[in-house]
Amino acid sequence: MSASAKAKVNNEKLREKIATQMREKYDRVLPLDEMLLDRWKKAEFLGFGEQTSVYENVYVYGKPEVGKNVWVGPFVVLDGTGGLKIGDGCDISCGAMIFTHSTHLRCVSERNMGTETKPVKIGNYVYVGSGAIILPGVAIGDHSVIGAGAVVSKNVPALSVVMGVPAKKVGNVVLKGKKAKLEFNSNSDEW
Amino acid sequence: MSASAKAKVNNEKLREKIATQMREKYDRVLPLDEMLLDRWKKAEFLGFGEQTSVYENVYVYGKPEVGKNVWVGPFVVLDGTGGLKIGDGCDISCGAMIFTHSTHLRCVSERNMGTETKPVKIGNYVYVGSGAIILPGVAIGDHSVIGAGAVVSKNVPALSVVMGVPAKKVGNVVLKGKKAKLEFNSNSDEW
Amino acid sequence: MSASAKAKVNNEKLREKIATQMREKYDRVLPLDEMLLDRWKKAEFLGFGEQTSVYENVYVYGKPEVGKNVWVGPFVVLDGTGGLKIGDGCDISCGAMIFTHSTHLRCVSERNMGTETKPVKIGNYVYVGSGAIILPGVAIGDHSVIGAGAVVSKNVPALSVVMGVPAKKVGNVVLKGKKAKLEFNSNSDEW
Repeated sequence: MSASAKAKVNNEKLREKIATQMREKYDRVLPLDEMLLDRWKKAEFLGFGEQTSVYENVYVYGKPEVGKNVWVGPFVVLDGTGGLKIGDGCDISCGAMIFTHSTHLRCVSERNMGTETKPVKIGNYVYVGSGAIILPGVAIGDHSVIGAGAVVSKNVPALSVVMGVPAKKVGNVVLKGKKAKLEFNSNSDEW
Repeated sequence: MSASAKAKVNNEKLREKIATQMREKYDRVLPLDEMLLDRWKKAEFLGFGEQTSVYENVYVYGKPEVGKNVWVGPFVVLDGTGGLKIGDGCDISCGAMIFTHSTHLRCVSERNMGTETKPVKIGNYVYVGSGAIILPGVAIGDHSVIGAGAVVSKNVPALSVVMGVPAKKVGNVVLKGKKAKLEFNSNSDEW
Repeated sequence: MSASAKAKVNNEKLREKIATQMREKYDRVLPLDEMLLDRWKKAEFLGFGEQTSVYENVYVYGKPEVGKNVWVGPFVVLDGTGGLKIGDGCDISCGAMIFTHSTHLRCVSERNMGTETKPVKIGNYVYVGSGAIILPGVAIGDHSVIGAGAVVSKNVPALSVVMGVPAKKVGNVVLKGKKAKLEFNSNSDEW
């Protein structure tokens, strides 16, 4: 058997064993490398806050500051090269990408211009929906909800609900005692 | 040579060998772990239907029920924690994400509230375009087309074409004998 | 210790070592397999131009032709099965997906119809934003900017700025000497 054929057989045996364990214990089946590497240890290595977890396939550039109890999903990009700060208790859902630098002018100027950087600040208890993209320079206030697939190019005040491409404010987060609910604007019934 | 330098050299040799084989046989070059692991065996392990394939980097939560002859692309999330059923003959294109739970209220309520779950049901012969996001609670009828990048927050009747963020119905799938075509509404010429 | 437990320990040791090196040298922490495999060697293997780099987790189908000095980010799909040509100096940002075939009619026709292919041509110094999707048949002229999250279904003339789902022209790239800037249409202040 060739070296690559052997590697294939070994990988598949390992996958079956570890996926069986993971399904029993955690009711999920992840890519093999995720099952072989701890999410909390990655967050700890990155200097993120307590109980924060970061999937193995997250790409981390620069040194983003991330608070505690933050969940960072798979297929995420955290670009700290222009300064990225994420507060406590946020969810950064699957496929969300947060950028603090852009190369578009460098690219179209045939590298005569440089990279632009602008910081991003995300408050506490902010929900960043799956597939959302946060562009450089954006600040998002506490307790806001960024909808799935939103492209956020402007600041988002605290307690806002924003959605769409580009993201627009479509409602508010209302906190009352220990409960939270979303109240949508009358003209945003399309959601 | 250090352990990590050795690991690097070994990985690159393995990649070159296996990528050469894969390019010759299947005209593609995939990430190394995909080339070392079989997509049909992963689907079989998950209990999915015959001839269904699931790329290694797909994240599977809970126990989604998936029919036969379904193609599940890379960068996909299948969240079965709230109940997910996908029929036969569907394409779940690259980067599509299907969710049956949401944590947005748990997040903004500082974990005073819990996770919400709602089931998703996708019929037979449904095409879910690349990067599309299906939100909890959605039902999609047979033979529908979900456009690339669509965010689907409402039910989709059978034989519909939906597109956009949020997804709206822009046309119909017309079946005639063994042929299918898309008919767009007159007001949807932007696509 | 079981085989899978041993594999876990070994992987985590390796990750810590190599991530420490990568953080010091390149100020980033990538998934383990990215840190073990060279991006420029992958591009060279694929026959792409000089100084082009391709992240390990990029999925390459068929034989796309890609010029020199192109940056291809993570979570990208390059589908060359219908003919894909990318010029020099382009940025293909994180999560961008470029398709030259579609299976939607094959899917909804229960495999009575086949796959459709149409070529895609991307000029020189084109910036394809993060999460953008380029659909089969599209041609994009030199020095254009495709916004983050855009879904491009129609041709894009040179020096254009397009954004949204579906992508629409919202402005122009203006080159003057060695400088480039974006000029937005008056009716596109939403961005």
